[in-house]
Amino acid sequence: MPSHAVGVDVGGTTIKVGRVDATGTLSHPRRVPTPRDVATMVEVIAAQVRDLAQPGDAVGVVVPGIVDEASGTAVLSVNLGWRDVPLRDLLVATLGREVAFGHDVRAGALAASVWGAGGDLLFVPVGTGIAAALVLDGRVRGTGWAGEIGMLTVSDPDGGAPVVLEAVASASAIARRYAARTGAAVTGADEVVEAAVAGDADAAAVIAEGMEALGLALADSIALLGSVRVVIGGGLAGGGEAVLGPLRNSMARRLGERPAPEVFAATLGPWAGCLGAGALAMGLSTTGAGEGVGS
Amino acid sequence: MPSHAVGVDVGGTTIKVGRVDATGTLSHPRRVPTPRDVATMVEVIAAQVRDLAQPGDAVGVVVPGIVDEASGTAVLSVNLGWRDVPLRDLLVATLGREVAFGHDVRAGALAASVWGAGGDLLFVPVGTGIAAALVLDGRVRGTGWAGEIGMLTVSDPDGGAPVVLEAVASASAIARRYAARTGAAVTGADEVVEAAVAGDADAAAVIAEGMEALGLALADSIALLGSVRVVIGGGLAGGGEAVLGPLRNSMARRLGERPAPEVFAATLGPWAGCLGAGALAMGLSTTGAGEGVGS
Repeated sequence: MPSHAVGVDVGGTTIKVGRVDATGTLSHPRRVPTPRDVATMVEVIAAQVRDLAQPGDAVGVVVPGIVDEASGTAVLSVNLGWRDVPLRDLLVATLGREVAFGHDVRAGALAASVWGAGGDLLFVPVGTGIAAALVLDGRVRGTGWAGEIGMLTVSDPDGGAPVVLEAVASASAIARRYAARTGAAVTGADEVVEAAVAGDADAAAVIAEGMEALGLALADSIALLGSVRVVIGGGLAGGGEAVLGPLRNSMARRLGERPAPEVFAATLGPWAGCLGAGALAMGLSTTGAGEGVGS
Repeated sequence: MPSHAVGVDVGGTTIKVGRVDATGTLSHPRRVPTPRDVATMVEVIAAQVRDLAQPGDAVGVVVPGIVDEASGTAVLSVNLGWRDVPLRDLLVATLGREVAFGHDVRAGALAASVWGAGGDLLFVPVGTGIAAALVLDGRVRGTGWAGEIGMLTVSDPDGGAPVVLEAVASASAIARRYAARTGAAVTGADEVVEAAVAGDADAAAVIAEGMEALGLALADSIALLGSVRVVIGGGLAGGGEAVLGPLRNSMARRLGERPAPEVFAATLGPWAGCLGAGALAMGLSTTGAGEGVGS
């Protein structure tokens, strides 16, 4: 098993690259702008890998959207304009080396399980969008559409037609809804969190409405899966208890008499995907719990 | 691996017992009344096992409620009045042989995966209550509170205070709510289904309200897990498309643009738990899909 890997996390705006070791230490972290076309992106990623990789290093690349890990395909990303891009094969052909390929949020969940909260967990980055990934019995589960909970249909808290969960509960939605409600010129959810902490009832209401919708969606999975810790990542995790408290309350209401799960803010921060790409490339897995029941 | 097992499915009213072979064929099925005290129950189960078991047979016992498979404990069953009953050890001591011990719904899911719909699935028996069990990557997942989705808090379709999902979507709830709505003296959900098929708008509405609540809870798990087939069991599965259609519609509304899962009625019928107890005892598992991603 390689002791180091170059991790590459392709985002809608920037590509995060770094060298990761088996303890989860990141070195040479850097961001480069995300090119709009696939050929240029392959060249940019290859140049970064050639620059950072030392002999024996593994390479891992993770991307957002609908990802088929088995075939190494970016099936669909609206933000990146991708449809059925065989990115792993393109990178392997360009680099002439093995490339581990995965989904950004599932890789982040792997990193959170290996180096962060540990063990089985539900990793939920809440930023511009919302996604989720499940680590169960020591493995990251799912492929394809798995975890794309941000597109769930929810009630509009303002009483309009149903909207998607992301339109109510994402960090960007919370900023936008607060601005619409108050006329204040906020640019990010962190400002809404600050306002809520300072006693602003509109800010608290917008956060509560978002966490009500997110908590319901997560609680239903917890009810099925049993006791799995919830790790909130992405920009909204920076809001701390002003966000996690309402989320816990929402989950507790939905779960009723059953035990509510622990809810944490992720500790790995915005580099979780890059770290996860490295973990994937190094073949790391958690020393999870037993292998289910019944078989 | 034993080629046969005696399967025992302890229910709130009757205990179902039968001999199961490795192809899922059930012989000598029988029902005995469920005793109210644990000591008598252990004796009744032991007597049935002694009567049915042939040399070399394995023995499996499954129970409802909150079950800890690892310790062989019936942690909580409101219907049976159990709290922390070490049932596996009691049976082993009485029988002087190994006993596989599990949860009725998780065992039913195992049977559905091994002998019924096959592969990965979400098994959801809807009868007097509602529970769910997940087969993922060829294994039945979860323990303890996992799958007790019937206790999720949902909106009251009649506009009252929030209620539990079972109070709206279970077979018994559908019968009760239809009777309350129409004054008709129905005794089971099958009569409501018949009425709905015959064009009774009240029957259709009561079914739709129940499936709306159930579909939302299931869709949220599907969104997290990705493409997993849904197998509806229990009494309500007998309603066929009059029930599955509204359930599919509810899930599709919640899932929005993402692909909706396949929804089937279980084929194993009311003996799924007994068959699953046998499968558990024989150590059967599905030849499921690969083992997740990222590790």
